[in-house]
Amino acid sequence: MRRALNLAELGRGRTSPNPLVGAVVLDAAGVLVGEGFHARAGEAHAEVGALRQAGERAQGGTLVVTLEPCCHQGLTPPCTGAVLAAGINRVVVAMADPNPLVAGGGIARLRAAGVEVITGVAEAEARTLNRAFVNRIETGRPLGLLKWAMSLDGRTALPNGASQWISGPPARAWVHRLRAQGDAVIVGGGTVRSDDPLLSSRGQRIPEPLRVVLSRSLDLPERAQLWDTAVAPTLIAYGAKAPADGRKRLAAITEAHPDLQTLELPACTPTALLEALAQRGCNQVLWECGPELAAAAIREGCVQHLAAVIAPKLLGGTAARTPLGDLGFTALDQLPPWQAESPQRLGADLLWMLNRST
Amino acid sequence: MRRALNLAELGRGRTSPNPLVGAVVLDAAGVLVGEGFHARAGEAHAEVGALRQAGERAQGGTLVVTLEPCCHQGLTPPCTGAVLAAGINRVVVAMADPNPLVAGGGIARLRAAGVEVITGVAEAEARTLNRAFVNRIETGRPLGLLKWAMSLDGRTALPNGASQWISGPPARAWVHRLRAQGDAVIVGGGTVRSDDPLLSSRGQRIPEPLRVVLSRSLDLPERAQLWDTAVAPTLIAYGAKAPADGRKRLAAITEAHPDLQTLELPACTPTALLEALAQRGCNQVLWECGPELAAAAIREGCVQHLAAVIAPKLLGGTAARTPLGDLGFTALDQLPPWQAESPQRLGADLLWMLNRST
Repeated sequence: MRRALNLAELGRGRTSPNPLVGAVVLDAAGVLVGEGFHARAGEAHAEVGALRQAGERAQGGTLVVTLEPCCHQGLTPPCTGAVLAAGINRVVVAMADPNPLVAGGGIARLRAAGVEVITGVAEAEARTLNRAFVNRIETGRPLGLLKWAMSLDGRTALPNGASQWISGPPARAWVHRLRAQGDAVIVGGGTVRSDDPLLSSRGQRIPEPLRVVLSRSLDLPERAQLWDTAVAPTLIAYGAKAPADGRKRLAAITEAHPDLQTLELPACTPTALLEALAQRGCNQVLWECGPELAAAAIREGCVQHLAAVIAPKLLGGTAARTPLGDLGFTALDQLPPWQAESPQRLGADLLWMLNRST
Repeated sequence: MRRALNLAELGRGRTSPNPLVGAVVLDAAGVLVGEGFHARAGEAHAEVGALRQAGERAQGGTLVVTLEPCCHQGLTPPCTGAVLAAGINRVVVAMADPNPLVAGGGIARLRAAGVEVITGVAEAEARTLNRAFVNRIETGRPLGLLKWAMSLDGRTALPNGASQWISGPPARAWVHRLRAQGDAVIVGGGTVRSDDPLLSSRGQRIPEPLRVVLSRSLDLPERAQLWDTAVAPTLIAYGAKAPADGRKRLAAITEAHPDLQTLELPACTPTALLEALAQRGCNQVLWECGPELAAAAIREGCVQHLAAVIAPKLLGGTAARTPLGDLGFTALDQLPPWQAESPQRLGADLLWMLNRST
C-alpha cells in the first residue's frame, strides 16, 4: 500500500476533478507484476494501468489500490469490470470512494463476484493524500489554501505599496511549486492593479492552474499579465451586482483578449466562487489575494490551510499593507484554533503553515 | 577557558555595570585548585575568588581568566596585585578589557612583573559573552533587545485593543527569563495606558530589572502596576519639552508613590534615554514598547537584537495594532540586513530572533 500511495502522488496537480490513485498488482506468488497511477482525467485509471502491465500474471493475484475501484461508466469504463476480467482473487483497498456514484458500490460489486476485499489499510494516509478531492465531494467546495509573504513585522508592502520582493528566490520557487499542486489561483482586483502578478507555476504544472480574478467593481486595468492567456487560462468572476461601468470595462478587456473566460456569480463572495469552481472540477485552490479578500475567505470557511512566508526584514509603516482585513473578533478567546506545523526555512525566509482544526 | 566561560555565565543579569568574568587556577602541576566568577558589582572579582580558593597551591601555577585582570582601584582593589601576590607564573586571558581604565594596562603590568601572559584564547566567545558590556563601553549605550508578541497575521492586538494574551504560557515564561538577563525594561506611556504591564522577571533576577517608562506627553494614568515599587524599581523619563499639564500629573503620581524615580532628558528620544541608562550602569536593555517607540528605537540604532514571538492565531483587522510604526523606507532595497537565527518553538508559539548585522 505504501508503494501504491507513492505511485498515486505522482499524479499530484493533474488529475482534477478526479482523485489521486495508485495501484500495484501482485501475482499468485506475491511477486509485484504491475503498477499504475492515475495521471490525468480521461486517461486510464490506476487499476487498469497496473492490470495491463501485469497481463496474464494477474490471474489469481492481488490488487492493492489506494481508492475503491469505480463501478460506473465515466470518461473510462468501470474498473470493477477490469479487475474481474483479469482474474484477481483479492483486492486490498485503503479507502472507499466518497463519490456518491461509487460510495461502496465498487467494493460490493467485487465481493458479489466472489473476490476477497480487504478495506481500511492505511486509510488515514489515503484520506490525507486526497484531502482536496474528499473536501470537494463532501462540501461541494474545493480545498482552500491561503498564502502570503510578509516581513517579520507583519507587512506585505511598504507604506507606498512596494512589495516586490519581500521574500527571497527559494521562497518564490516554493510558491511556484505550491501553485502546481492546485487547480486554480485566486486574486482580487486590487492585487491585479497593485502587483500585476503572473501567477503561473512557471511550467511545473501542465496545464497551468486556472488564474482567477474575483472583482466586485470590475475596476480592472486595461493591461495586465493575467490577460495573456498564452501563459495560462484566466477567469474573471464578478457578482450579479457588478456596476455597469465595470461591465463596460470588462467587455473592452475581453474584446482585446478573446480567450479570457468570464463568469457572473450570484454574489461576489468567496463561497459563490468556490462552488462555481467545484462544478468546474477544481479540487484545490490557492488564495494569493490581498487582505480584504483573504479575510472574507477565512470568515466564510473557504481556507483550510494557511502558509505564511516570513522574511527576516522590517518594513515598518502604520499605513503599510498587512496580510488580513477584519475578521470581526472582539476578544482573544473567540479566535478559532489552528494547528501549527513545524516551521521550515526557505533560504533566508521562514515558512509556517497552519491547518484549520476540524 | 571553556570552564572559565561557563563560570562567568553564572553571573548573567547581576554584574552590571561590570562585565561577566570567570576564572580558574591550576597549580604548578596543572591540577585545578580554584575557580571563581564575578557575582555582583562591589563583590570580589572572579580572579580574586579563584585565587582565594587555591590559596598556597596557586604558587607557580596558572590563572585562566575570561577578561584581562584589572589594574585600577574600583569598588575593589586591582586584581593584578592579587595575581602577583599569589605567585602565579602564567596568565591565560581570553580578551583585553575594553574599559579605558584598563585597556591592556593589566596585561602590561603582569608582563612587567615577569609573568607569562597568553592572550586571545577563545576571544570570540568571550566577546559574545560580554557583548552588552562591550557595547556600552564602545558606544556609550547599552545593548538593545526589542521583543514583541504577535499573531501570524502581524497583529499585536485586536482592533479594539485587546492583547492579553496573544502568546501562550511558555512564551510568557521565556519573556520573564529574557527580562532577567537585562538591566532595564523600557515601555512608552501608551503601553502603560493600554496594557498596565508588570514587566518583572517574576523573581528570576534579584534585584528586578529597572522598569522604565519613556513618555513624551506624561499623559500617564493615576494608577498602574508600574507605580508599585515594592515589586521592582521604576523610572519615569521624559524630555525637556514635556508639557506643563503632564509635569503636573507626574508630580501627583510621584507624591502618591515617593519611591518612583524620575529623569528629565535633554530630548525625549531612545538615544537620550540609553545614554542616561548607560551612565547609570545599564549594559543591556529590553524594549517592550508599542509600535511608535519601537520604530524610533530601530531608526536611532538602539536595537541590536530582535525577538518576535509569533502565535499560530489570526487576529485580523485593518485598524489593529502592529509591531512597528514607520521606519521611513520607500524601496525594499533600502532595508538594512538582519541576520536570522534558527526559529524555536515556545509551546504552540514560534520565536524568531534577528540580529543586526554589523
